[in-house]
Amino acid sequence: MKPKAQITMFTVVLGVSIVLNFFSFGRLYLNSDDDPDLTWTEDAAEEAEAVASIKCSGHGMAFLDGLVSVEGKPVCECHACYTGPDCAGVIQGCFIEADSGDPMFLEPFWMQHASGSTIVLAPWHRMSYDLGDGSLISKELETRIHKLHEITKNANTDGKYIVFGAGSTQLLNAAVHALSVDNDPAASRVVASTPHYPGADRILDSDNYDFNGDTYTHKNDIGNFIEFVTSPDNPDGQLRKGILEGSNVKRIHDFAYYWPHYTAIPYPTDEDLMLFTLSTLTGHGGSRFGWAIVKDKAVYEDMLKYMSLSTYGVSKETQLRALKLLDVVIATAGREMFDFGYSTMKERWGKFSKVLSMSKRISCQQFDPLRFCNYFQELKGPTPPFVWLKCEREEDVDCNAVLKLVNMIDWP
Amino acid sequence: MKPKAQITMFTVVLGVSIVLNFFSFGRLYLNSDDDPDLTWTEDAAEEAEAVASIKCSGHGMAFLDGLVSVEGKPVCECHACYTGPDCAGVIQGCFIEADSGDPMFLEPFWMQHASGSTIVLAPWHRMSYDLGDGSLISKELETRIHKLHEITKNANTDGKYIVFGAGSTQLLNAAVHALSVDNDPAASRVVASTPHYPGADRILDSDNYDFNGDTYTHKNDIGNFIEFVTSPDNPDGQLRKGILEGSNVKRIHDFAYYWPHYTAIPYPTDEDLMLFTLSTLTGHGGSRFGWAIVKDKAVYEDMLKYMSLSTYGVSKETQLRALKLLDVVIATAGREMFDFGYSTMKERWGKFSKVLSMSKRISCQQFDPLRFCNYFQELKGPTPPFVWLKCEREEDVDCNAVLKLVNMIDWP
Repeated sequence: MKPKAQITMFTVVLGVSIVLNFFSFGRLYLNSDDDPDLTWTEDAAEEAEAVASIKCSGHGMAFLDGLVSVEGKPVCECHACYTGPDCAGVIQGCFIEADSGDPMFLEPFWMQHASGSTIVLAPWHRMSYDLGDGSLISKELETRIHKLHEITKNANTDGKYIVFGAGSTQLLNAAVHALSVDNDPAASRVVASTPHYPGADRILDSDNYDFNGDTYTHKNDIGNFIEFVTSPDNPDGQLRKGILEGSNVKRIHDFAYYWPHYTAIPYPTDEDLMLFTLSTLTGHGGSRFGWAIVKDKAVYEDMLKYMSLSTYGVSKETQLRALKLLDVVIATAGREMFDFGYSTMKERWGKFSKVLSMSKRISCQQFDPLRFCNYFQELKGPTPPFVWLKCEREEDVDCNAVLKLVNMIDWP
Repeated sequence: MKPKAQITMFTVVLGVSIVLNFFSFGRLYLNSDDDPDLTWTEDAAEEAEAVASIKCSGHGMAFLDGLVSVEGKPVCECHACYTGPDCAGVIQGCFIEADSGDPMFLEPFWMQHASGSTIVLAPWHRMSYDLGDGSLISKELETRIHKLHEITKNANTDGKYIVFGAGSTQLLNAAVHALSVDNDPAASRVVASTPHYPGADRILDSDNYDFNGDTYTHKNDIGNFIEFVTSPDNPDGQLRKGILEGSNVKRIHDFAYYWPHYTAIPYPTDEDLMLFTLSTLTGHGGSRFGWAIVKDKAVYEDMLKYMSLSTYGVSKETQLRALKLLDVVIATAGREMFDFGYSTMKERWGKFSKVLSMSKRISCQQFDPLRFCNYFQELKGPTPPFVWLKCEREEDVDCNAVLKLVNMIDWP
């Protein structure tokens, strides 16, 4: 090759090399301000991404604290009726347990919103019993809950107090104590309208107080009553108000399902004691987080006292998680999550109704007509996360036995 | 320049450029196996490291869910008696609240062990109410607890059952229910030996059952008793056994302080119902995690039932955190944490005793002589996390008033 041609070739190769160098140096060092090197969080982040990358066919998941192989590697934990190392196998003759709900339908939503709602929890995060100010309740989380109800238009929280609990189960116990005469649960009768979900009487009929059954049977009774009102009701999906009247009647309103993915929101509720839970809002039942919105200061203080004696408040890591999840919900004024939730529920009801319409033996509850939803600003029907089945044939006295024929098990 | 010299120069520059390219490409792409690029965890990791890097002079901390500035940036939350943006200011005339404990002395240990015990919590982690198998108790965590007692030699857990609770507070309530005649807490008398910590009677004298005061006053009584035994006892630091005898006496043993940082471990305890808590073991009081070790299957099942009705188990994020923390403890057979904990407590007792020895007005409890610790394999004295003060002058009837003179406030 002639020297001139050689020089031209060198110039080109050198040019390419220098350009590549600029590119590499740029990627390595110039982005460092936006993208700092991680130190103590890196191993945990890699571990979490590795566990999340394990494929379980959409019928299971591997967890950081889950089952591990003999080599100590996390493995898939399969959903009911699935099996195999990647959960791709179907267990023949498997029974579906239809006895209680687990709002896992929102799991795909959270997988789509991983980066905004992931938490890196340092081992020194909130080690103290309280939050520095002697309180067991995160002020930041309290603010988010007010904001959440404001954007969802499902409850008026103005001037009301907020108590945190480990799910609405604990808050219900706290509320019964606080509303009882002299804080003695035995001095009041606790009632709930039928139909109610099978879990309600288990919880209400606990050691601490007697559950006196259906509200309607006490409509004309005199005495101290605590009326438990679930709205929308589980299992019939109807919006409900209290039934008993009089100054000796106190009410606990369970609004676990009063969110736009399950029902039209015709008005913001404005009751004296309202319970909500993260389980049905974001699908995080495992976190055991709920809150009560309380009008009366004395009731609020009694509930705080109960929480303090029962568990000394709610775990700080749970409060942090709830905060991060609500931040994601609030960021789009709830639209992304409620749109996802409502459309998923609607699609499932579509499929379910189609299958049920083919049967003359089993039917389900009739729903209220469409109502105007102040949140979605349009007419919506109920899309509850439960169904109330009925066996239509007179000879089918044992409806559970009929369900068993199609591999479903109801409340044992 | 002559073409030959030009070629030589080009060759050298090109050589350097290519070497640099190899270096950069190597750093950018070849390390990818050891150090994979993070995706959805990166923002959270950066946020956590940024919050952790905020300097608060060792007298405070900034938190992910903590106070924020008007610009929305996390700011220092100062410990009691400190103030200012970096907590460097001392509040003059500030009172020290000596009414209850908060085992924050282990915080520096966890800051030194950040990378092994940090958790990256995906928003889809354990959303379900249960752990897939219908259980509310992580099998992995249960295994670690058995291992922990085995290495610490402080409790025999062989063949015993484990129940998780939100701190030992909830487990104490669960145990009283389970041990009561017909599960009715009113049918048994609950007693504890004096001296006991001021919180004990608040908890024991709750709505659900009556606290019948000091065990000694019932030594010759007949009837159903539940005896609450704290060992080492708070506040006197002594190892204790039960006092009442007979087949109608059931015992709940609170071993919150039976760990090598607080006491010599002369033998593994082997009682029927033993309570432990993460608060005093690792210092994570805010997590509300404790466990009961139970010999009798029926009592275990009753406690599980109570846990299910009270809060439907313990938050899954808390269980994951406890697992990670115990893994760090177990990795060195407890040595690193217990060495740190014991030497910190010993140093503090040294300083405290020196100050106290200068006073003739206030004294503290006398300690048991040194005992052989099976864990440390040497003689150790007690180094409890509490002190039992006594006012020596006859005229100092109100000991609290004396403490107030030196800016300390006891139980209000």
